[in-house]
Amino acid sequence: MSPYADLNVPTRTLLGPGPSGVHPRVLHALAYPPIGHLDPQFIALMNEVQDLLRYVFETENPLTIPVSGTGSAGMEAALCNFIEPGDSVLVGVNGYFGERICEMAGRYGAEVRRLERPWGEVFTLDEIEDALRAKPAKLVALVHAETSTGALQPLDGVADLVHRYGGLLLVDCVTSLGGVPVQVDARKIDIAYSGTQKCLSCPPGLAPLTVGPRALEALRSRRSKVANWYLDLTLVGNYWGGSRTYHHTAPINMNYALREALRLVQEEGLEARYARHRRHAELLWAGLEEMDLALHVAPEHRLPTLTTVRVPAGVDEAAVRKALLDRYNIEIGGGLGALKGQVWRIGLMGHSSSLQNVTLLLAALRELLGR
Amino acid sequence: MSPYADLNVPTRTLLGPGPSGVHPRVLHALAYPPIGHLDPQFIALMNEVQDLLRYVFETENPLTIPVSGTGSAGMEAALCNFIEPGDSVLVGVNGYFGERICEMAGRYGAEVRRLERPWGEVFTLDEIEDALRAKPAKLVALVHAETSTGALQPLDGVADLVHRYGGLLLVDCVTSLGGVPVQVDARKIDIAYSGTQKCLSCPPGLAPLTVGPRALEALRSRRSKVANWYLDLTLVGNYWGGSRTYHHTAPINMNYALREALRLVQEEGLEARYARHRRHAELLWAGLEEMDLALHVAPEHRLPTLTTVRVPAGVDEAAVRKALLDRYNIEIGGGLGALKGQVWRIGLMGHSSSLQNVTLLLAALRELLGR
Repeated sequence: MSPYADLNVPTRTLLGPGPSGVHPRVLHALAYPPIGHLDPQFIALMNEVQDLLRYVFETENPLTIPVSGTGSAGMEAALCNFIEPGDSVLVGVNGYFGERICEMAGRYGAEVRRLERPWGEVFTLDEIEDALRAKPAKLVALVHAETSTGALQPLDGVADLVHRYGGLLLVDCVTSLGGVPVQVDARKIDIAYSGTQKCLSCPPGLAPLTVGPRALEALRSRRSKVANWYLDLTLVGNYWGGSRTYHHTAPINMNYALREALRLVQEEGLEARYARHRRHAELLWAGLEEMDLALHVAPEHRLPTLTTVRVPAGVDEAAVRKALLDRYNIEIGGGLGALKGQVWRIGLMGHSSSLQNVTLLLAALRELLGR
Repeated sequence: MSPYADLNVPTRTLLGPGPSGVHPRVLHALAYPPIGHLDPQFIALMNEVQDLLRYVFETENPLTIPVSGTGSAGMEAALCNFIEPGDSVLVGVNGYFGERICEMAGRYGAEVRRLERPWGEVFTLDEIEDALRAKPAKLVALVHAETSTGALQPLDGVADLVHRYGGLLLVDCVTSLGGVPVQVDARKIDIAYSGTQKCLSCPPGLAPLTVGPRALEALRSRRSKVANWYLDLTLVGNYWGGSRTYHHTAPINMNYALREALRLVQEEGLEARYARHRRHAELLWAGLEEMDLALHVAPEHRLPTLTTVRVPAGVDEAAVRKALLDRYNIEIGGGLGALKGQVWRIGLMGHSSSLQNVTLLLAALRELLGR
């Protein structure tokens, strides 16, 4: 007998920076017995997952796939395939994930230039243009939805600007895809990646990624092999694309779950889904402000899917999170990096974005903070 | 509404090179609602998964974790952390996965030397020593269980030899862990990795990995950063080890499933499990030989978990596999690489290794081949 007890995980209400709550239909799909990764039925399912990902990314890009790792593997795939040693990469750093992009890009030999802003602010077109005028970059990387700050980076016009200076636009959509419009084709984004466990409300384990024609051309004209074999998009693309050449064993059950999560997105419809995220975020913001809590991000740049709240003076922020978890089974997040100890992070993503959850959280916070 | 139908995957009997069949308890665990990756309850579960992995690897290594990707990500983690540009790496190439190791190691700048043998054979201690005497290597990589050939590489004495020449021994245990003894500590293996979807009978998506003290020392004395951020074991180890520093979001549900799959291994006991794999393999071999089918690997080097059978002259091997799948819902594998078209690959791994499955497959093959 095993000395380990039966699995017994608590039922949390997930209102942190991810993972978000998962619809029962997705859990049900996850638990189907696996079939082989080269089974014709799985190949058919791969096609469907790709089509559904194109729907949510709003793109026609053939190379649109779930990378076989979590969001950070998506980030790494988006970088390592388009960087060769010595390439110039301009990164918008206004939070933790911009920092991470710099770190990863540097490891692949990029000459990394940082465009900086305080955590919680966003970049203007003029700032980006100034940086490119000073020196063009092969790749410009921006975080659409900064999970560490709750700021939403405007993207309109950015790709045209980046293209004018001969670069590719890479966008981190980890906390936006399925919750706020990403619109890859309309915005001419060249490379975008996300995670499954945020606004798509699928368990963590896959990273949706899409690559447009300009980026594909850059991939095809590389002079060197991609150092990272597992994430080499030429090899991965042959498995997901035409030739179906075996590369690695795809996480079969996670793809079952992602297909179901994406079906739910499609059933709801993108516009209705974005409106739901915004509606519940606005209710949350109003409720927090009614308690005299300050929101960290200016209203015009606030992300509906993740809200940062300033911790009031004299309040032990970790104790509040612990009480929420222990007494109410509610998870919210603490601050990360530069905002550590200063903010709480409240996610209303995917299945977690509901009136019920906003009401519950506000009531629990009111009780705990005595406001 | 989504134009995509409800998920409807066929119920296959998985007797190919992986994934293998999954016990219902594992599927049940997989479908628990996720909790946060920094939730104290998940941290406790991570500890249990690590302890259970140590049990099956037969090791005390603190750095024993499930890498957040499939088996190939385990291979890449095992290589990229221990290779710096210019390092000499000796790889035993007697099948497809030895080739893959060479390819990956080369991408990280290793000076790769190949020790070659025809597909289906294994290496002797003398051969390895000759190669090391000619030139020492920082890393010697062998595939314990070659999924492409069905050969089992003997490991006794190899680590002592490799250590005498100042190197580290890296072993691919993808198709052996949980099915034949790996014995990391007794055999002094420095680095070993596997996949969850073979003899552990968990869906694909994680790669068990263990790193011994010598290898850890090599990791700590690196002169350069690991190019691969997602698989950087110093960062990953801090998340799984003492400091619990956030690195990436672990695939929560896959870890639920792995814990349950490992509990099943522990309940059965390693010795009983190895005996079961051997017993059913011997029944399969006898049944195939009764049909006048030739086995590709010599009896003394045959892997109990994966059997390669020569395709008889005049038989369309793909048509037989297709008939098995379409008519009997049985998956077996075709040949890979140098053995493409020449063999079938039959896996009896984990939950799939049963008298029932051997009986079914032999009966189906008898009908299809008219033998």
